[in-house]
Amino acid sequence: MRKYGVADTTFSRVNMGDIAERTIRKDDNDCEIVRYTVPGIKDLPVAAKKLIDSGCDGVITLGWVGRTQLDKYSYISSSIGLIMVQILTSKHVMDVTVHEEEAEHPDDLVRIAEDRATKHARNLVRLVRDGGKSLREYAGKGLRQGYENAGELD
Amino acid sequence: MRKYGVADTTFSRVNMGDIAERTIRKDDNDCEIVRYTVPGIKDLPVAAKKLIDSGCDGVITLGWVGRTQLDKYSYISSSIGLIMVQILTSKHVMDVTVHEEEAEHPDDLVRIAEDRATKHARNLVRLVRDGGKSLREYAGKGLRQGYENAGELD
Amino acid sequence: MRKYGVADTTFSRVNMGDIAERTIRKDDNDCEIVRYTVPGIKDLPVAAKKLIDSGCDGVITLGWVGRTQLDKYSYISSSIGLIMVQILTSKHVMDVTVHEEEAEHPDDLVRIAEDRATKHARNLVRLVRDGGKSLREYAGKGLRQGYENAGELD
Amino acid sequence: MRKYGVADTTFSRVNMGDIAERTIRKDDNDCEIVRYTVPGIKDLPVAAKKLIDSGCDGVITLGWVGRTQLDKYSYISSSIGLIMVQILTSKHVMDVTVHEEEAEHPDDLVRIAEDRATKHARNLVRLVRDGGKSLREYAGKGLRQGYENAGELD
Amino acid sequence: MRKYGVADTTFSRVNMGDIAERTIRKDDNDCEIVRYTVPGIKDLPVAAKKLIDSGCDGVITLGWVGRTQLDKYSYISSSIGLIMVQILTSKHVMDVTVHEEEAEHPDDLVRIAEDRATKHARNLVRLVRDGGKSLREYAGKGLRQGYENAGELD
Repeated sequence: MRKYGVADTTFSRVNMGDIAERTIRKDDNDCEIVRYTVPGIKDLPVAAKKLIDSGCDGVITLGWVGRTQLDKYSYISSSIGLIMVQILTSKHVMDVTVHEEEAEHPDDLVRIAEDRATKHARNLVRLVRDGGKSLREYAGKGLRQGYENAGELD
Repeated sequence: MRKYGVADTTFSRVNMGDIAERTIRKDDNDCEIVRYTVPGIKDLPVAAKKLIDSGCDGVITLGWVGRTQLDKYSYISSSIGLIMVQILTSKHVMDVTVHEEEAEHPDDLVRIAEDRATKHARNLVRLVRDGGKSLREYAGKGLRQGYENAGELD
Repeated sequence: MRKYGVADTTFSRVNMGDIAERTIRKDDNDCEIVRYTVPGIKDLPVAAKKLIDSGCDGVITLGWVGRTQLDKYSYISSSIGLIMVQILTSKHVMDVTVHEEEAEHPDDLVRIAEDRATKHARNLVRLVRDGGKSLREYAGKGLRQGYENAGELD
Repeated sequence: MRKYGVADTTFSRVNMGDIAERTIRKDDNDCEIVRYTVPGIKDLPVAAKKLIDSGCDGVITLGWVGRTQLDKYSYISSSIGLIMVQILTSKHVMDVTVHEEEAEHPDDLVRIAEDRATKHARNLVRLVRDGGKSLREYAGKGLRQGYENAGELD
Repeated sequence: MRKYGVADTTFSRVNMGDIAERTIRKDDNDCEIVRYTVPGIKDLPVAAKKLIDSGCDGVITLGWVGRTQLDKYSYISSSIGLIMVQILTSKHVMDVTVHEEEAEHPDDLVRIAEDRATKHARNLVRLVRDGGKSLREYAGKGLRQGYENAGELD
C-alpha cells in the first residue's frame, strides 16, 4: 500500500486539496492519503517535509499565489524550498500552483485550478506507483496542466 | 506543555512580538514562550534556528520590510532562509512580514501588522498543538492576514 | 561500464530525451542508460537525484521553459536545485534548457533543441568517461549549444 | 572570554573592519577578535564560516556593493550564503552592507558606513554576550543603521 | 605543498584558465595545479566541489556570461552554488566572472578578463597560503578587478 501526502492552504480560493485527494483515491485504490493544511505557500515546504517524515511515498502541494510582486517573491522562495525537500528526501513533491493573474474571470481560475490539481495528482500516482518510466510515453509531447496541451513540434 | 518561539526585530515599527506573545498565551494556556529580538529580517532565520535548537515546538517570526528594491532582496534571502530552517528541523516557522508600502497611512500599517501577527500566532498554535488537520476546515477558503478574507471561489 | 541518467519532461515540445539517449549510446558503446520522465522542470532536480541515488555516474536533464515571467521564476528555482544536486553528490548533471522565446518559428526551436541536447550529451559522456581534462582543448573557445559558436577573442 | 570574527573586503571604500573591531573591543573588554579580509562580498560567507569553524561565537561581515544590477545579483547570492552559514552553525553573522547608490556624496557614504558598522557591531556584542533578550527593549522601535531611526508607529 | 584547482569553461571567449594557472604558478612555486574544464557557468559549482573533494586547498572558477536576462538567471544560480560549495567545504572558491556587456569592444573584454583572472588568482594564492590576514593591508582600499581601483573614501 502506498501513502500519499496532500498539502494545501487556507489562502487558496479553491479547495484543490479535496480535488487531489479524490483523484489519488480514484487512480490508486490501494493507498493511504494524509492531508496537511497550512496558511500559505511559504508553509508548504515544511508541510511536505513533515508528510515525508511520516512515511509518505510522495506529496502533492497545492498553492495559490496573489498578483503582486511580493507574492511572486514568496513564490520563488517556496519553489526553491519544495525543490530542496525533494533533493534531501529523494521523494517527489508535485508543486501545483495557481496564480491569480492567470485568468480574469473567477470561473476560469476555478477551471484552471481543477484541471491542474487533477492532472498533477495523476502524475504523482504514476510516478509513485510505477516510477520514472511511467510518463515516458508522453516525453516531449507538450502536455500542459491548467491549459490545453501545446503539443509536440515536428 | 508546548514551547513556542517568538522572534522579532528592532527594525520593525510595531511591536508585533508582544502581540504574538499575548495571542499565543491566550490560545494555549499550557505553554512556555521564548522571545528572541534581533536587528532585522536577515537575522530572523538564525533566531528561529536557535529557538528550535533550544526546544521550541514552533516559531513565529515578525519581520518589517522597507520600500526599496534593496529591502526586497533582503526579504527574498530571509524568506528562503526561514524555509530552509523549517526543512532542516521539520518544525513550523510562521513567517509574518509587513511591507511599508502596503499602506500609506501609519494607522493602516499598524492595523495590518496587528491583524497579521494575531492571526498567524493563532495559526501557529493550531498547527503546533493539533497538527496538520487543525486548519483543514479552512482549506481553500481564501483566508487573508492583514486584509479581509478573499473568500472561496465557486 | 558507465551508467548515465537521462531526465526529461512531458512539458517539452521536443523529445530531447530520445536525442540525448541516442547520442550517449553512440559516443559510449559500453554504457547503461536510465531514462526518467517527469511533468516539468521543477521535477527535474529530484529526478536527477534519484538517478544518481540509483548509481548513475552522470545525468543530463532536458527542460523546456515557457515565455512568461512565471516560467522564468520556475527556471531559476530548478537551476538552483540542479546545482544543489550536483554539489551534494559530486556528480555532473548537465542542465539543458530550451526557452520558447529563443525562436519565433517552431522549426528553429526544434533545431535549437536538437543541437543543444546533442552537444551537451556529448559533453556529459566526455566528462563522465574522461574527467575534467576531457574538454580542456576547448577551454576559452567560445563554444555554444543551440547556436553557432561565438569563438575565441584575441 | 568571547571570541568575535570580523570579515571585511578589499572592495570596500571604507575600512569598516577597523570600525567594527574598535567598537567590539570597547563594548566587550573581555574578548578576542579575529579579522578576515577577502576580496569582495561573494567571499564573505566562507570567511564567516571559517571564523566560526575556528571558534568564534559570532561574526560581523562588512560588505560594499556597487550600483549595477550585476552587483545586486551578487548581493542576493551573498545574503543567502550568509544566512545559510548562520542556519548551519546556529551562530549570528551580522550582515552589514553599504550600497554605493545610498548617497551621492562620498562624505555621506562614509558616514553611513561608520554608523552602520558601529551600530551592528554593538548589536553583535549584545546578542553574543547577553542572548536573545538583550535587544528586547528595542523591539518594534523602528531602529535604523546608517540612517536616523524611523521610530515606533502608534 | 599546496594544491590549487582551476575550473573554467568552453563557453568563455578568453582562456582565463591558462591565465590563472600561470599566475598561480608564478606566485606560489611550491604548488600543484589541477585544471577542470566544463561547458558553462552552471557546471562550475560541481567542478569546484570535485576539485576540493580531490584535495585542493582552494579553487578559482572562471566564468563568462552572455548579455541576456536568461544568462543572468544562470549567473545567479551559479553564484549561489559556488557560495554553497564554499560553505559546505570551508574552502575558498574565487568566483571570477566576465559579463559580455561589460565592454563593447572585444579588446576591452579581453583586457578585463585578463586583469580580473590575474588579480583574483593572486588573491587566491594569498588566502590559501597566508590565510585571512594576508589581504588585511588592503581592507577598505576600494580595490577592483577588471577595472581601475576605486580607492578609499576619506
